[in-house]
This record gives sequence, C-alpha cells and structure tokens, in this order.
Amino acid sequence: MKIAIDAMGGDNAPEVVIAGVEKARDANKELTFLLYGDEAKIKPLIHHDERLTIIHTPEKINSDDEPVRAIRRKKQASMVLAAQAVKQGEADAMVSLGSTGALLAAGLFIIGRIRAIERPGLLPTLPTVDGKGFVMLDVGANAENRPYHLLQYAIMGSYYAKDVRNVENPRVGLLNNGTEANKGDKMHQEAHDLLAAAPGINFVGNVESSDILNGPADVVVTDGFTGNATLKAIEGTVRTVMHMLKGAIYEGGLSGKLGGLFLKGNLKSMASTFDISSYGGAVLLGLKAPLIKAHGAADAETVYYTLLQTAKMVQNGTVTKVADYFDAHPEVAEAKTAEKA
Amino acid sequence: MKIAIDAMGGDNAPEVVIAGVEKARDANKELTFLLYGDEAKIKPLIHHDERLTIIHTPEKINSDDEPVRAIRRKKQASMVLAAQAVKQGEADAMVSLGSTGALLAAGLFIIGRIRAIERPGLLPTLPTVDGKGFVMLDVGANAENRPYHLLQYAIMGSYYAKDVRNVENPRVGLLNNGTEANKGDKMHQEAHDLLAAAPGINFVGNVESSDILNGPADVVVTDGFTGNATLKAIEGTVRTVMHMLKGAIYEGGLSGKLGGLFLKGNLKSMASTFDISSYGGAVLLGLKAPLIKAHGAADAETVYYTLLQTAKMVQNGTVTKVADYFDAHPEVAEAKTAEKA
Repeated sequence: MKIAIDAMGGDNAPEVVIAGVEKARDANKELTFLLYGDEAKIKPLIHHDERLTIIHTPEKINSDDEPVRAIRRKKQASMVLAAQAVKQGEADAMVSLGSTGALLAAGLFIIGRIRAIERPGLLPTLPTVDGKGFVMLDVGANAENRPYHLLQYAIMGSYYAKDVRNVENPRVGLLNNGTEANKGDKMHQEAHDLLAAAPGINFVGNVESSDILNGPADVVVTDGFTGNATLKAIEGTVRTVMHMLKGAIYEGGLSGKLGGLFLKGNLKSMASTFDISSYGGAVLLGLKAPLIKAHGAADAETVYYTLLQTAKMVQNGTVTKVADYFDAHPEVAEAKTAEKA
Repeated sequence: MKIAIDAMGGDNAPEVVIAGVEKARDANKELTFLLYGDEAKIKPLIHHDERLTIIHTPEKINSDDEPVRAIRRKKQASMVLAAQAVKQGEADAMVSLGSTGALLAAGLFIIGRIRAIERPGLLPTLPTVDGKGFVMLDVGANAENRPYHLLQYAIMGSYYAKDVRNVENPRVGLLNNGTEANKGDKMHQEAHDLLAAAPGINFVGNVESSDILNGPADVVVTDGFTGNATLKAIEGTVRTVMHMLKGAIYEGGLSGKLGGLFLKGNLKSMASTFDISSYGGAVLLGLKAPLIKAHGAADAETVYYTLLQTAKMVQNGTVTKVADYFDAHPEVAEAKTAEKA
C-alpha cells in the first residue's frame, strides 16, 4: 500500500512528518511512502530509506494562501502533487498537515468525489468521558448542507466507525437543538426523517451538543456550519478550562503548587483524554480515496497514529464500501431527488 | 417597581424563589413583588411580607407540558397569570425558573413583541477568562433566523450590555465559521453585511466559538440554532472537564486527594467562573417588558442576582430604548424588506 505524503504541510514540517512516517514504516511492513516536498530538507532527516521515495517539489502551499487559487496555480506544490499521485492511482491515500482549506480544495478538485456524494464531509474523532470516543461530520468542509447530505454522512461515518474504530453496529445521532424527534429547523427535521427511514444504519435519534462528550452516539452527523461551531466550542472550552486550571496551580501560591505536584499524573492523563489531535487526523469522507488532514501543530506521534488510521481505511476498502452502498441503494442516493420534488 | 414572580417554576420552588425574593426586597427598597403560586406553600416560607403580595394560583406548568398548549390551556397557572400581570401593566417585568419553552410561549403570546422585533431572542451571560463575561443571543428561542433578526439582536444586545452590564460602547461580534468577512453560509454573509452597515453599533466582525470565552466581543449575535449548539457545547464541555477533574482528585488515590486538598480554594473559584447560572438569568429580548428565565436548578443566590439584573433593566428603560431605536431608524427596521426585495 502506498501513501502519498505532503511532507511540507504543518507548523513543524518536514521534521515531524518524516519522523512519523519512519515510525509507521517500521511498524507496518505493508506501508510504502511517497514523500512530496523539498528534497534538500527531507533527505537529511531520513534515517533509512526503506520503502520511502522522495519526489522533489519546488513549491509549497502556505496557510495564508487563498485555498482554491493556490491549488490551481501552484501546480508544483507538495500538496498538489501528492493529490495528483492519488488521482493517477500511484498512491492509495494521502496525508497532509497543511492548510485545511487548500486540502479540501485539493480533495474536491484533484482527487474527486465518489459519484453519489455531492458534498464530502470532514470527520474528526472526538473524546468521550469513557475513553471510547466518537466521530462527527461535517465539521466545516461545507458552510451549508441539505438534509440528504446528512444522510450520506451517516452512511459514510458508519463505515468509517466500523472499519477504522472497530465499532460494531455504530449508533448514529443527529446533532440537533433537542432530543425529541420534531426538534430543529426544517432542514434538521427533514434530515431526522431521512435518517430514521434509511436502511443499514443504526439511527438513535437526535443528540445535543451538551451531551455528545458522554458518548450517546458513535457517529454524530451535522451540517458543516453547526458542526464547525460545536467542534470549535468544545476545543475552545477545553483549552480555556485547562488554561485556568494551570493558572490555579502555578499562580495559586504554595498550596497551588503543592496541589499541582500531587495531581500531576492524573491531570496529565486527563489532558491527554481531551487532546483531540491524539485521536489522529480528520478524514475528508466522500472522495475517491482517503484524504486525511492531521493538525498543523501535530507532533511525530500524531503523524504516526494518523498514518496507521489511513492504512486501516485503505486495508478495509472503506471508500469502495461507501461507493458500493450507494450503487446498491439507489433509493438513498435519490433521497436528494425525492426531497427536491 | 413591581416584578411579577412565577413562584412555582423550577426544581426547588417555591423555597429558593421566595428566599431570593426576600433578599432582593431587602437589598433594594424600590422593589415590590407579586408572587404567583400556591399560597399554602408560599406563605409559610415568608419571613416578613413587606412589599410582597401573594396571588394564589391553583395550577402550575410542568417541565414536560407541551409549551404552547400549556400556556393556552392552563389559564390559572402561576406562569400564565404572572405574564398576564405584565401584559396588563400591573407589573413591570417577570421572572421565572420554569420551563424555557413555556416561558418563551408566555412571552410571545401573552406579553407580546415590540412591534419591530419579529423574533425575540434569548440572551444569557457567559463567562470569559478575564472574568468580565459577555452576552450571546439568540441561544435557542428560534430554530431558524434571517439575517435582519441578527441585526436586531445586535442592537438589543448592545443596549442590554450598556444598561445591565455597564459596558460602554459594547463590541458586537457575529458568531461565524471563520473570522474573515466573507465567511459562512449566505445567511451569515448577509448578516455580516447588515451588521457592518448598521448605525449605532460597534461591530467588530466575525468571532469563532473557539475564541468567545476569551472575550473578543461583549455581545455575540448568532442564529438560534447555532447559538443553541454553541452554548450547550460550552456547558457540556465545562461539566465534562470538571467531572473528570473531580475524578482525578477523588479516585486519584492519596496523591489525588492531597492534591485536591491543596487546590481546593483555587478550583472552587475556577468552578464558579464557569458557573453560568451565577451570571443571573437569560433574558428574552424583544418583548414589550423584561422577561427573565433563571435556571431551573438555580439557588436563592442566583434568584437574587436575577432579580437585581431585572431591576436594572427596568430602571434603565432598556425595552423603551430598543423600541425608540427602531422608531428612529426605520431603515434598520426595514432591513427586512430590503433583504427580501
């Protein structure tokens, strides 16, 4: 299996990228990597080049580039060439730590969508109190969604939860403003009805953002605008509370410092539960091949986990399963038509 | 000034309600209260009846009643009669700890809207890291909003921040999926443009839910669906992190317990920063009189703060100022027409 790596994306590229790649290569004998980036920077970082090929790229996409324009104009950028490799079948999947916007554009315009999926969705893995975690999509690939997009997210998210997270019969919840079936605006009411009627998913009804960290669903489906606000609210709140906790310890005088000392180990394990990047990267589901975005600030360990996650998706043929589902269930693919009629 | 109290709403009614009312009465000589509820239960709780009048009501609205139906059918319920008192000018404002849905219905159908405000919005006060806090609306009075509703929220929220929270020239932010001006779906893009052009507000642009606890704006405006998801995500995340922190202390063996002991005071003050109910109640802004909903689990102290907050709104004539603004700025009230054209 070949994975195309945008070696230049992210805050600490290419160092953490190469370190993560070598660790994954050593852990899984089936993995081969195509490393797209500045050869002069990458080569000195490599310990041994078994199953690693560097493809030199003279350009890179920066985080402040306008995404769609950058993808179209910087034809020699590491991200663009890695996506081209997937498009042309030279690689089975792609991983990048680069700009989310540009990566979404590369996915849509270069790798391309599965025919039935009109709006691919971005799926991260989030923590739950019991440590099992859940996935949520779309968290912002789209600013606006239609009800049938959410049905497609439910199906794709379920395959992902089974294949990559080993969840049997994953519970699908619809993020809504109340748990009752008739809650929400028209869009979410229609999405609820589509989900309740769809074959092959285990729909458990509406879930609320106040409760999702308790794990009421393994797959939370949402429109990209609400999903984005919810994900960012969770991340921002965890960051804020942890920051204040540190303040309570370090600016809390002697008793604060002593307390921090005694609690150190426990707080560390708690912080790691809420470290969303430790759950690997976010997948843009709905493309013809796996495209995974790891956090720009990810370390080598996170890159490593992201690569194992990617390998699992390829090994299980998750993308093919999704495409097959929609071929076998034209009535679901056509929910769109029904809704518009 | 007379405040109508739904003495029967909330988990610990009428006990905490009466205790909070008596404390507010003692703190502010201008306050007079009309207490709607079961006289047999209320009377024994009262220490002295100065500026308190009990109006016996034989019914109450329960949290599982269907809101609109309950308001229409239980004509003798404490919540309904308190709202009627405001409607008929016998009271200047109303406070309840009861069901949010029923209270919204009582506000809309009994107290009534300010003419120019099509969709009143629910405004709670949230904490920020620096302790100053901010207000956000709408957090769920509506499942769906139009751009001009958000402009109306900006204006109402600004008056509220000035009058009740003593913020001069309050900064207004639009909750969106990125900070750039062109972010969001069509609705939020249009709302951004309306806000940027509106006279008399200090619009600072888009804000993200990952950042709002850092206080980038004093008034965050949002559609009711996104606002609801964001508020609940913040509340749920704070609850979850605090719960895990307690676990780290109490199930953390001897070192956990010792650490907890040393940190006790600091953690307590941190927990209180994030105790949203300590910031008083949520106001349904856009009605002809102040209607304030305190948390169902509020204690007497929170009821007391909510009553002082209510008094401030009445004393400052916030509702009149809002109505006057829209009379003086027909072009803003007509943003609706412009948008639909």
